[in-house]
Amino acid sequence: MEFSSKLLQEAVDQVSFLPGIGKRTALRLVLHLLNQDQEVTTDLAKALLDLKVKIKHCKNCHNISDNAVCDICANPKRDQSIVCIVEDIRDIMAIENTEQYRGVYHVLNGKINPIEGIGPNDLTIDSLITKAKQGEMKEIIFALSSTMEGDTTNFYIYRQLEKFDIKTSTIARGISVGDELEFADEVTLGRSIVHRIPFENSLKA
Amino acid sequence: MEFSSKLLQEAVDQVSFLPGIGKRTALRLVLHLLNQDQEVTTDLAKALLDLKVKIKHCKNCHNISDNAVCDICANPKRDQSIVCIVEDIRDIMAIENTEQYRGVYHVLNGKINPIEGIGPNDLTIDSLITKAKQGEMKEIIFALSSTMEGDTTNFYIYRQLEKFDIKTSTIARGISVGDELEFADEVTLGRSIVHRIPFENSLKA
Repeated sequence: MEFSSKLLQEAVDQVSFLPGIGKRTALRLVLHLLNQDQEVTTDLAKALLDLKVKIKHCKNCHNISDNAVCDICANPKRDQSIVCIVEDIRDIMAIENTEQYRGVYHVLNGKINPIEGIGPNDLTIDSLITKAKQGEMKEIIFALSSTMEGDTTNFYIYRQLEKFDIKTSTIARGISVGDELEFADEVTLGRSIVHRIPFENSLKA
Repeated sequence: MEFSSKLLQEAVDQVSFLPGIGKRTALRLVLHLLNQDQEVTTDLAKALLDLKVKIKHCKNCHNISDNAVCDICANPKRDQSIVCIVEDIRDIMAIENTEQYRGVYHVLNGKINPIEGIGPNDLTIDSLITKAKQGEMKEIIFALSSTMEGDTTNFYIYRQLEKFDIKTSTIARGISVGDELEFADEVTLGRSIVHRIPFENSLKA
């Protein structure tokens, strides 16, 4: 694709670095911004920079937060002894939408994935173990998507936690195997939390 | 959609203002940026702001350009007496890719569209008429898309140019090269029969 302007080319290149956005879509987006008021671009750029610079991760659960501790962890009505392990914050949003869960979360920031070079040390598993050692956790709910990477991660963490007296469960497989959590409908996802089953049982099927 | 962070919400809102990008896609893009190095976001924001602040429009043809006159208008090899009228710069890029055109362009920045409140004064028609008055234009090629708005715009400009001694033409409408006849729409097939060209001419390109 040949551009009449280096500035335009640079903008299109930068936008097309985003996942799922090709050069053609990037050009459409950039031309849209060019046709809008200056403020539209300024506001967009400011929002992205502010997010990147000012955002914090909850020191407790690694959720994205404006404060040192996220709203969920800081909420006295939530049961701090039940911890739901999720892959990223989109999964928290999906589970929160069901209004079926009153415990807290632990965001792993990914799954163990040897092909992409993601090992246990790249995730927040250490901080989960630290929390387990403190002895306040009574139950851990595994809520990773049921892919091979998700199952591997579940099992790795399960083995790490065996020595502690913590009940483990996994959300019910009402969700189709291979489907992503964030796209599940609320009723199915809600039920899968209510009907969680002991982790040992999940190894059978 | 409920967010755990106002910064995150603001970023997702801003990104989802872009055309064809919903909240879910915006969240995916924003989380991608969060997982990248700081520079990725900085470079993206800088490229968009630079484009918006520093970009110029060619004073001759209204093409997007880094300079006061765009590379095409400034090229002495291009025939300044043939002007191709296009809707936006994406059409210039499409035509340039064919390497079949050696004239220059005139970018209208849209089409006459009463429903969206776009009248002739919102386009660069005045500057086209000014160029016509200077008497250097010999031919004008209409290359707007053949929608109702495109045809209306073509006809409006055609009437404005009638008083000048300028040849007008429009790009050929017909069956795409390589397309099956049986799948072509009736209007296109009909036009391609009415506007058939001498067989010898079809051997040229």
